[in-house]
Amino acid sequence: MNEISPINSEMTALQRRDNSHYLHPFTDYSELHAEGATIQDRAEGIYIWDADGRRIIDGLAGLGCVNLGYGRQELADVAARQMKRLSYSQSFFKTSNEPAIALAAKLVQLAPRGLNHVFFANSGSEAVETALKLVHRYWKLAGKPEKNVVIAREQAYHGSTIATTSLSGNPVFYESGGGMPIAGIERIKAPYWYMNGADQSPEAFGLTAAGWLEEKILHVGPERVAAFFAEPFQGAGGAIVPPATYWPEIQNICRKYDVLLVVDEVVSGFGRTGKWFGCETFGIESPDLVTIAKGITSSYFPMSATMVSDRIASMLIEKGGEFYHGFTNSGHPVGAAVALENIRIMELESVVENAADVGHYFGELIASLADHPIVGNVRSCGLFAGIQLVADKETRRLFDESLRVGDRCSAEALQRGLALRAIGDTMALMPPLIITRPQVDEVFKITLEALDATARAFTAQKVG
Amino acid sequence: MNEISPINSEMTALQRRDNSHYLHPFTDYSELHAEGATIQDRAEGIYIWDADGRRIIDGLAGLGCVNLGYGRQELADVAARQMKRLSYSQSFFKTSNEPAIALAAKLVQLAPRGLNHVFFANSGSEAVETALKLVHRYWKLAGKPEKNVVIAREQAYHGSTIATTSLSGNPVFYESGGGMPIAGIERIKAPYWYMNGADQSPEAFGLTAAGWLEEKILHVGPERVAAFFAEPFQGAGGAIVPPATYWPEIQNICRKYDVLLVVDEVVSGFGRTGKWFGCETFGIESPDLVTIAKGITSSYFPMSATMVSDRIASMLIEKGGEFYHGFTNSGHPVGAAVALENIRIMELESVVENAADVGHYFGELIASLADHPIVGNVRSCGLFAGIQLVADKETRRLFDESLRVGDRCSAEALQRGLALRAIGDTMALMPPLIITRPQVDEVFKITLEALDATARAFTAQKVG
Repeated sequence: MNEISPINSEMTALQRRDNSHYLHPFTDYSELHAEGATIQDRAEGIYIWDADGRRIIDGLAGLGCVNLGYGRQELADVAARQMKRLSYSQSFFKTSNEPAIALAAKLVQLAPRGLNHVFFANSGSEAVETALKLVHRYWKLAGKPEKNVVIAREQAYHGSTIATTSLSGNPVFYESGGGMPIAGIERIKAPYWYMNGADQSPEAFGLTAAGWLEEKILHVGPERVAAFFAEPFQGAGGAIVPPATYWPEIQNICRKYDVLLVVDEVVSGFGRTGKWFGCETFGIESPDLVTIAKGITSSYFPMSATMVSDRIASMLIEKGGEFYHGFTNSGHPVGAAVALENIRIMELESVVENAADVGHYFGELIASLADHPIVGNVRSCGLFAGIQLVADKETRRLFDESLRVGDRCSAEALQRGLALRAIGDTMALMPPLIITRPQVDEVFKITLEALDATARAFTAQKVG
Repeated sequence: MNEISPINSEMTALQRRDNSHYLHPFTDYSELHAEGATIQDRAEGIYIWDADGRRIIDGLAGLGCVNLGYGRQELADVAARQMKRLSYSQSFFKTSNEPAIALAAKLVQLAPRGLNHVFFANSGSEAVETALKLVHRYWKLAGKPEKNVVIAREQAYHGSTIATTSLSGNPVFYESGGGMPIAGIERIKAPYWYMNGADQSPEAFGLTAAGWLEEKILHVGPERVAAFFAEPFQGAGGAIVPPATYWPEIQNICRKYDVLLVVDEVVSGFGRTGKWFGCETFGIESPDLVTIAKGITSSYFPMSATMVSDRIASMLIEKGGEFYHGFTNSGHPVGAAVALENIRIMELESVVENAADVGHYFGELIASLADHPIVGNVRSCGLFAGIQLVADKETRRLFDESLRVGDRCSAEALQRGLALRAIGDTMALMPPLIITRPQVDEVFKITLEALDATARAFTAQKVG
């Protein structure tokens, strides 16, 4: 039993207690403790109100997860009903539950062709862990255990466990050691036209970037390469949208060398790109494994899944033997009921169609930012956008990292009532998929003001 | 879009659809698909009803997680209220939410001394991943990055991600490859008196088993050992309850060599042992990190946490720099609200006291099974028990593995309306903590009948 810290006035009390006891994810505690956190109090649709009653437009849909928006009574009702009926059910010992079965069948209906099987977990990280284990088990059962190298990309994001951090491949994530990166991961450059290949047309560069996969496979030896892991567009690693030529060629290369294609749709799934899955948007026809999370429940309940192709599932089922993998809450009946209701509403209210339609409008507005004095490159796809700030548009010179220009820009936006995210100096936007055109106008207006303010601040600084 | 499988009659339809699309955790699909799953339909208190209306006593509390029992209206109401108010909140970008802050403060009140800080995640696996990363970050910041080896035990269970599977150390879990076990893990034998040291008294053996840690530390070199990871009692790895002398000595050894002590309370936390935490029951006074999950919400909502000592947290806060770790749903406001309500009810209804009181009675009944012809050893702690079956009590000879005697015994129990678990040939029981004495009598009666039936089956087989 520990003494908890004493508290004073209302807002300060929560902030102080937050500092005293709550270690936030992906945070510099020294910095947070000096500033104090904003306390989110209630939310409805695309809006969040903080404990002081200030309204913020959530330009991030939480962390790209609240696809349906906040405060839906139907989801709360379904969750409560299922909790009262069957609040938990394990699927380990030859037991199952109706919501999990119904959700598996529904996901199979929505998913890319051939993904007829579903393994449930709690988070995107766990879905990717599941995919990693399935890849290795598949090749073991197929009699090719020497196919045990996986290839991932720079600026990827696949999760925060030790293995998925290793797959993400951001060297700063490894710096505390602890066996990261784990063995057996090879890496290629991202299909990042603006920084990695702008001497070519985007179309030509897409083929060049896909060619890096073939080079790597040949370098490692096709007989040793188990799988290629990639997000349809790269989210947290830099908001990178590949040229249209990239994915069809990647798919050809995977087929050519019998390398399993694992598509991480944790961010892109459930409508973000204007289709149910990024696979459809980018022309990925028959992935072997697809990981999903976030939008599956609009994050009203933590849930994730790995969609498994017939090729892999048949091997597991026919060869038999236990698949030694799973989580206490795999196939949680409440999560499954919430996911089913979330999908039902998305279908009923044509939320994915809205993401496509409003996303098109959003994309046009974002494209117009290319002319802004500190914007070097803009990229968007559906209701996802990245706006990359540069010190010099001509030479593509980035701002000095220590200036933290992106952080300044997001602070300027937040002050004006919009939450967006700085990934380095790339500003990311990914609002709830229920956003309307007038709301997009509001988002755009504040984004532009924040860019202007940032430009003034850093132009002044340059002159000074 | 995929065709989903056609369906026929009610019960068969669900089972067939289950087989067609749902890949269960820790399952042999070939076996499951031949038998079909039991569909759990509704549950109340300690009872579950399947889709045919058959009532089962849940002697496992789900997977040792439904500590408060099923169907509590209060938890459903709180979840629905919080979903309507603030269905999600990210804590990545200097934002926080009141339920997460309040839960962190409450956990600090309940937890062993000095654990004043909380990092939230979704599952036990993720809590242990967090502990692994914190251990390495601590030693890095402390200027001793060469302290990077962790020690775990045989027959441990710490999760199902690649790193936590590696920590668990069951070789069959590794068989599919995939870089398991990860580097930097050393292993010692378990404090398993019956199989590892029954030539000594349990008290003497407890010190011997603790000595194995000291031997390993000296073998590796204390300057290289970062931490020791262990469960207070071992659950899924074999239902092993250590002698009372074990833990105090382990703690002394960790202090002597400046090795961080990480206690995995995913199963033992929230009352299972008759105290809030296993640390109290086993005399572990000042662990450096404690992982919790399952009972924190009685699994009405997936949530976990890593409790962090002042020693480690101060290092993170004072040295600054981002802790590159976290999950989308870390600090989920709905999970936190559910956990707070779960803890409030446990306090109001003296659920932990009930676990101690009824657990004492339960332990006496379990102890009486030592005389049963096929029972070699019984062990219990609070409302957890392991009953180990043997072919020969005198020589401690186990049954031939291929006979699957434990599976037969659990099938006999299930047929009589009790879910218990076979860990090899050790039968594990861990009912909800709200169980009453008359209900314990019912559990015991069926357990005894199942043991008798199993004995008859395998005695007959031996003679035949």
